[in-house]
Amino acid sequence: MSAIQDNLKKANAEYASAFDKGHLPLPPGKKYLVLTCMDARIDPAAALGISLGDAHVIRNAGASAADALRSIVISQQLLGTHEVVLIKHTGCGMLTFTNDVAHALVEKNLGGEAAREVEGLDFLPFQDLEEAVKRDVQFLRESKVIANEVVVSGWVYEVESGKVRQVV
Amino acid sequence: MSAIQDNLKKANAEYASAFDKGHLPLPPGKKYLVLTCMDARIDPAAALGISLGDAHVIRNAGASAADALRSIVISQQLLGTHEVVLIKHTGCGMLTFTNDVAHALVEKNLGGEAAREVEGLDFLPFQDLEEAVKRDVQFLRESKVIANEVVVSGWVYEVESGKVRQVV
Repeated sequence: MSAIQDNLKKANAEYASAFDKGHLPLPPGKKYLVLTCMDARIDPAAALGISLGDAHVIRNAGASAADALRSIVISQQLLGTHEVVLIKHTGCGMLTFTNDVAHALVEKNLGGEAAREVEGLDFLPFQDLEEAVKRDVQFLRESKVIANEVVVSGWVYEVESGKVRQVV
Repeated sequence: MSAIQDNLKKANAEYASAFDKGHLPLPPGKKYLVLTCMDARIDPAAALGISLGDAHVIRNAGASAADALRSIVISQQLLGTHEVVLIKHTGCGMLTFTNDVAHALVEKNLGGEAAREVEGLDFLPFQDLEEAVKRDVQFLRESKVIANEVVVSGWVYEVESGKVRQVV
């Protein structure tokens, strides 16, 4: 067992010993979903006031709406959510590389077979944070698989201050 | 501003007023990533003992490894993580429907144009929880784009008890 796994088991034993939320239903109580980045410096529950059972939380590299579409459709069509809160953040890793750099790294570190496995894959980096928020919100608002009445808002979380601000 | 957005702003203002972690670097301090489900009943930081800055957290419908592959490659190749903790959970929504049901719901609720937009999309439901954990761990261990030395473990989180148990 790795140190990571050992820490997980110990921390979870403590969490479970005080756990009293076993009755919560499957559908999110507040019928919304948060889409944010996988970044280690973001704790959505704490930073955004999400109580256990309130909301779906989808996280991927860069909080990409396109990458999250399968999950968003399931959240809305099968579990009844009807609001999307999309949050990208300052200092995002996706601002630091290009597709060419990512593909070259895969080839250098993992070899030609690996490079061919992700050939043509868009790693979805972006160059302008607020522009990326606006573009992803527009993508969701225009998507045929998101109902017209779904409310979509776009935000930036500042990893330096812990503050969010609404962009759109 | 929706009630959801209003609550977010108020909760965040309180969080930010006590925030003192603005110095954390971009790469995860403990060099691992957690992949789990978007389910509203899971709070990874609290339940798994992830301190701010420790780990990437990727979340999608069902904690699908295939769906998360872009994010995992970025986490490992660009931000230096080298351990994956994959956690699916009891009572998962993905156990409750089939692809046919999901596609039919999209058509019924959103119309033919929406149905065509996700035609052929695999929503990645599964029928057996532990089998799905094992299959996704195997997928990552065999993937050419995951380095051989990356440690991958698979777990189940019980939404009824708050407990995790290791499957593989």
